[in-house]
Amino acid sequence: MVTTVTSLDNPTVKLARSLSKRRDRQRERAFVVEGVRALSEAVGAGAIPRAIFIARELLGDGEAQERLLVALTESREAGPGRHMRVLEVTPQVMKSLSETDAPQGIAAILPFPESTPPKAGTPLIVIADGVRDPGNLGTMLRTALGAGATALYTTPETVDLYNPKVVRAAMGAHFRLALRSNVGWDALDEELIGCDSIWGADAGGEQLYTAADWTTPTALIVGNEDRGISPEARERCTDLLAIPLAGELESLNAAVASAVILFEAARQRRG
Amino acid sequence: MVTTVTSLDNPTVKLARSLSKRRDRQRERAFVVEGVRALSEAVGAGAIPRAIFIARELLGDGEAQERLLVALTESREAGPGRHMRVLEVTPQVMKSLSETDAPQGIAAILPFPESTPPKAGTPLIVIADGVRDPGNLGTMLRTALGAGATALYTTPETVDLYNPKVVRAAMGAHFRLALRSNVGWDALDEELIGCDSIWGADAGGEQLYTAADWTTPTALIVGNEDRGISPEARERCTDLLAIPLAGELESLNAAVASAVILFEAARQRRG
Repeated sequence: MVTTVTSLDNPTVKLARSLSKRRDRQRERAFVVEGVRALSEAVGAGAIPRAIFIARELLGDGEAQERLLVALTESREAGPGRHMRVLEVTPQVMKSLSETDAPQGIAAILPFPESTPPKAGTPLIVIADGVRDPGNLGTMLRTALGAGATALYTTPETVDLYNPKVVRAAMGAHFRLALRSNVGWDALDEELIGCDSIWGADAGGEQLYTAADWTTPTALIVGNEDRGISPEARERCTDLLAIPLAGELESLNAAVASAVILFEAARQRRG
Repeated sequence: MVTTVTSLDNPTVKLARSLSKRRDRQRERAFVVEGVRALSEAVGAGAIPRAIFIARELLGDGEAQERLLVALTESREAGPGRHMRVLEVTPQVMKSLSETDAPQGIAAILPFPESTPPKAGTPLIVIADGVRDPGNLGTMLRTALGAGATALYTTPETVDLYNPKVVRAAMGAHFRLALRSNVGWDALDEELIGCDSIWGADAGGEQLYTAADWTTPTALIVGNEDRGISPEARERCTDLLAIPLAGELESLNAAVASAVILFEAARQRRG
């Protein structure tokens, strides 16, 4: 087995740490995924880490941990991953590259997974247009995947898809959903060509979301938490959606609102 | 105008700071609410602060701020609030009692609002049974209010209803929804007497949530993020609900799952 890395100056450790910055993630086209569950999802979906960091003292020895380590070893031996670096590190080194106060003991550098093709079937495209809170965007990814969305795109005004807090909230959804980040409206127009309706989720909307038809090719645009959707998005929308709210509530959390709408789409599509 | 409080040892400031601890909140039956929007919601719903802290340098002078200050002055002069203390404080003092890195410049000590009667109409009761993440519970409050739930109860295993992160995510919903915290199952049984169905939100459920009837008196129990609902809850449930998930997703975030279910209830109740 390899010796344990104790130095914070190890080049691979330094690379992982640099990926907390968007600029460095963009340059490397890579990001860090932490924890047994998120990494298991990634590897299960076919992702091949560039490097893996293991701090045995933090990892524990549950069944999920064992399964993950076996899967990593197999993917390493199978071919393209055979040059994957596996670094045993001290808890201190793990903490230096973790975004959490209590790291789980395993983390990896993974390439951007933006090559998953859109899911087959009637398009249900989600566009995050200026969503700023990383927890909201991550939850939207997980929710969009569960509701059967076929692809998710983000505009340049949106928080980075590979921000560590987005990655944590998405719980592995990055690897199972067709994604593109930083997409401008010209490119989005091409993606939206086949859509019968483009709906905007907005607190000021008029079209009851349950009365909209979600069974044909459709897109949903989710805007900024405070300002709603952008003028560019607005001019592309068939209409803005309304979710009727009781209790004099002005709006729902952005991730909750998109979940309510996307699962109405899923309900209609089940027929 | 009063002089500006500069000392972190001011007794009212110390009281506010102590309310970051659950034990102290329980003893005082009071908690701290921060920010213009949440406080406006509270005052708009009739809450009367015991004390208000204002740091002018942080507050800014938007329209919402002005409206809130007028409303606070009026509620103070109107009667029961006339002994309300208003303290101008330095930014440093405000930061000492704030849970956020960038406090908005206004905060207040408010009494527990557990006297709002359940909303009239067909009961739709939400029980949080072991929800541990404060952001999830706060979002559940906001969502339950918006979906027309008539009351929300928490079991002793649930994160404290007045935890500052719960309060922040709920965005004022504490003051518009009938609430009871720390309720044991004997007391809950009495609250549930009139319910035709008691559904459990659980990743392992079998009853399709859209096929359940939400138009009669109903309760929804939401369990712990990892372990699901407790055995005590399970034995009271008519059945556990299933939300069909695509993308090999195992579960949704707890707040998202309850939102999806509660807005299906709202949809059915609109007829």
